[in-house]
Amino acid sequence: MSTSPSKQMHLGAFLMSVGHHAAGWRFPGVDPANTMNFAYYKKLAQTAEAGKFDLIFFADRLAISDRFDNRFDTTVRYLAQARPEPISLLGALGAITDKIGLAATASTTYNEPFFLARAFATLDHLTGGRIAWNIVTSTNDGEALNFSKQEHLEHETRYGRAHEFLDVVTKLWDSWEDDALVLDKENGIYADPSKVHYLHHKGDWFGVRGPLNVTRPPQGHPVLIQAGSSDTGRDFAAQTAEVIFSSQPQIAAAREFRNDIHARVLKYGRTPDSIKILPGVMPIIGATQAEAEEKLRHLEDLVHPLGGLALLSDSMNHDLSVYSLDEPLPELENIRGNQSRYKLVQEMSKRDNLTLRQLGKRFGGSRSHRVVAGTAEQIADNFAEWFGSGACDGFNLMPAYLPESLTDFVEQVVPILQERGLFRREYEGDTLRQHLGLARPQNRFT
Amino acid sequence: MSTSPSKQMHLGAFLMSVGHHAAGWRFPGVDPANTMNFAYYKKLAQTAEAGKFDLIFFADRLAISDRFDNRFDTTVRYLAQARPEPISLLGALGAITDKIGLAATASTTYNEPFFLARAFATLDHLTGGRIAWNIVTSTNDGEALNFSKQEHLEHETRYGRAHEFLDVVTKLWDSWEDDALVLDKENGIYADPSKVHYLHHKGDWFGVRGPLNVTRPPQGHPVLIQAGSSDTGRDFAAQTAEVIFSSQPQIAAAREFRNDIHARVLKYGRTPDSIKILPGVMPIIGATQAEAEEKLRHLEDLVHPLGGLALLSDSMNHDLSVYSLDEPLPELENIRGNQSRYKLVQEMSKRDNLTLRQLGKRFGGSRSHRVVAGTAEQIADNFAEWFGSGACDGFNLMPAYLPESLTDFVEQVVPILQERGLFRREYEGDTLRQHLGLARPQNRFT
Repeated sequence: MSTSPSKQMHLGAFLMSVGHHAAGWRFPGVDPANTMNFAYYKKLAQTAEAGKFDLIFFADRLAISDRFDNRFDTTVRYLAQARPEPISLLGALGAITDKIGLAATASTTYNEPFFLARAFATLDHLTGGRIAWNIVTSTNDGEALNFSKQEHLEHETRYGRAHEFLDVVTKLWDSWEDDALVLDKENGIYADPSKVHYLHHKGDWFGVRGPLNVTRPPQGHPVLIQAGSSDTGRDFAAQTAEVIFSSQPQIAAAREFRNDIHARVLKYGRTPDSIKILPGVMPIIGATQAEAEEKLRHLEDLVHPLGGLALLSDSMNHDLSVYSLDEPLPELENIRGNQSRYKLVQEMSKRDNLTLRQLGKRFGGSRSHRVVAGTAEQIADNFAEWFGSGACDGFNLMPAYLPESLTDFVEQVVPILQERGLFRREYEGDTLRQHLGLARPQNRFT
Repeated sequence: MSTSPSKQMHLGAFLMSVGHHAAGWRFPGVDPANTMNFAYYKKLAQTAEAGKFDLIFFADRLAISDRFDNRFDTTVRYLAQARPEPISLLGALGAITDKIGLAATASTTYNEPFFLARAFATLDHLTGGRIAWNIVTSTNDGEALNFSKQEHLEHETRYGRAHEFLDVVTKLWDSWEDDALVLDKENGIYADPSKVHYLHHKGDWFGVRGPLNVTRPPQGHPVLIQAGSSDTGRDFAAQTAEVIFSSQPQIAAAREFRNDIHARVLKYGRTPDSIKILPGVMPIIGATQAEAEEKLRHLEDLVHPLGGLALLSDSMNHDLSVYSLDEPLPELENIRGNQSRYKLVQEMSKRDNLTLRQLGKRFGGSRSHRVVAGTAEQIADNFAEWFGSGACDGFNLMPAYLPESLTDFVEQVVPILQERGLFRREYEGDTLRQHLGLARPQNRFT
């Protein structure tokens, strides 16, 4: 009995340092020295590939977190802040994997489109079509200050820049037609210049003549991922994204979000199956539910509340050090950072009646993403329920402490999902687009 | 009998597409489809490592060549123009090698220091200290037009920017002291914030607050390479470079160049052994001298003269399509591109009384670098003579057609150099600095 691929969920592994949980580095069995260690990342990538994940995913930040108290002391002292630059890391991990997709985050606010188009096209060639770009607009002033700017762009402005940036990048990817190479050694004709195109792009933000000096990527375009949840962010995603990494802790809201995205996608002339929605989730696996809950409690005990608040300050681009730790999160306006993240945190804070100290611990855990603690069977049930009810097309896993959280999931949860026909037993294609069931884009110049 | 390392030469392999020679892609045995193929680059890197090379080296360009006739038709039609973005490529090749150094070219004119510092620091971590950055200021308007600029910066201006860029990058590499990580799981102290430093850099070109969000690279600083040969370029190299990739076709001039660099180095308070000078050379190996010369002749026959002139136009940032192909290179002033390259080409053109057509073929061959055609024994003799006479500290090999030119050198010339005690039989260290005999830089914040 075979199961149609469209009935199977997609899984990403969002790998962060030595664990997503702010206290992951302190957990038993974790080596906190691994944050820059290639052998460690290699093992993670190969574990995820053995688990037949669609992709592994790396975040990015362009500064040390220091919005809290206007110093980096809290984050440097209590958190594993150092992390690899993801484009170089993707190059390395592509070389030692065969099938799994690889996603790197890169900012449209602090990069140039020619550079990113070229790097992602190169990676897509080197990996035979396994690359995705997670498009972000960055979050705060600390990043601006490392790029000769005084402050971070306003929300709408940076989405304007993101739109133009993406337009230029996809045009650059198309600037060589698929059949531009002639490779006629006898007559000395390497390529057909009539199939290579200038862009002559001149917009509000960029002037880029093109063409790229890399041929068209194997996937046509590397897969485009986004995480924006604001109204502007949703609209941008509906126009351009192929995967949405969402933050949706509640099943009903997740279903509404997916319906909303599908409606927007139709408005832009796309079909709902051209976009896959993968909410973040942090699974905590135990032999019993009690053991899983105990692990989670232990992790929460180990988080320094100021570490979590420092991360939240960064995400909001607002210094929370000035408020009392024993009061709730105050009402704030004009957040220049991640607005939708702020809303989620505010809801969580009110719902569970949290003080700022408690909120710091909670945010340091999963950054407002969903946490599921239970046995492998319970986690599989939970994933099946979300997936089966149309709340998502799969999940972006946020392993709490590494490598164990990932290994446990691959060894214990994946076989159950496979047994139920909810997840692939083998890769059926070679490219990330094939894993995700996404079409290869037409070339606009052909 | 052991030979002191200081008496041994250093070897780089400057790998360009499917061969350095403009007609390399047409040569028998070469697969021109390899320009973006990872398996191919992997084999090259492993061959160079089997040959105990100090490093492999990748150039970079930020545009398709189109200075000639203001179109890219000539270069796209006759040359293998597509090539990988070198930072991603270095990530990939670092993952499948153990000892060999890896150098990527990156421009100070069209990048941001925070990004490059972070990428090179990451690569240095992932490879355990085997990375070098070849610092260039880029060459022409085609590159400017891909980065929202109208024209390339003037020579002196772009060196001013390069100085400041490098200052910021090295400060970022130092922004975490070597012992900043505490990793105290018990007490929850990840790092010591007093050993992490803001730069608060504000200069003519950049405002960069820092610190980096990557810990200090294993080599302290990745090795710094430069190729500038103008007076400004030499001075910049003497202050900052650790390896110079020079273009010196004549032994006497090469010795003068090396003496000049040593004198300048002393002026800046450095010692001559803190800088290694590796002139480019294209060896053409035959079973007999006649066979080698026949190979070279065949390669030259296969070059389209307009392809070579198009490359030269780009390098000079001056369109040569307006001159007669049957006349010599005219006297030109105010070249905004590679000035010292222009001088070399002009000397070569006068010395050998070349028409523009002949010059195009010659430049398409080795881009004005030295070509040595002969048996393996003759090439080893020639290398020994240059090295022994103080003309250089080793060579940056420019294999004409790949993989064969590299394989032949590793199998035939390297054993002779080893036999004579002129080249290592085994790697003695683990980092590129150790291969090159370069000290690990002190941290300016410690």
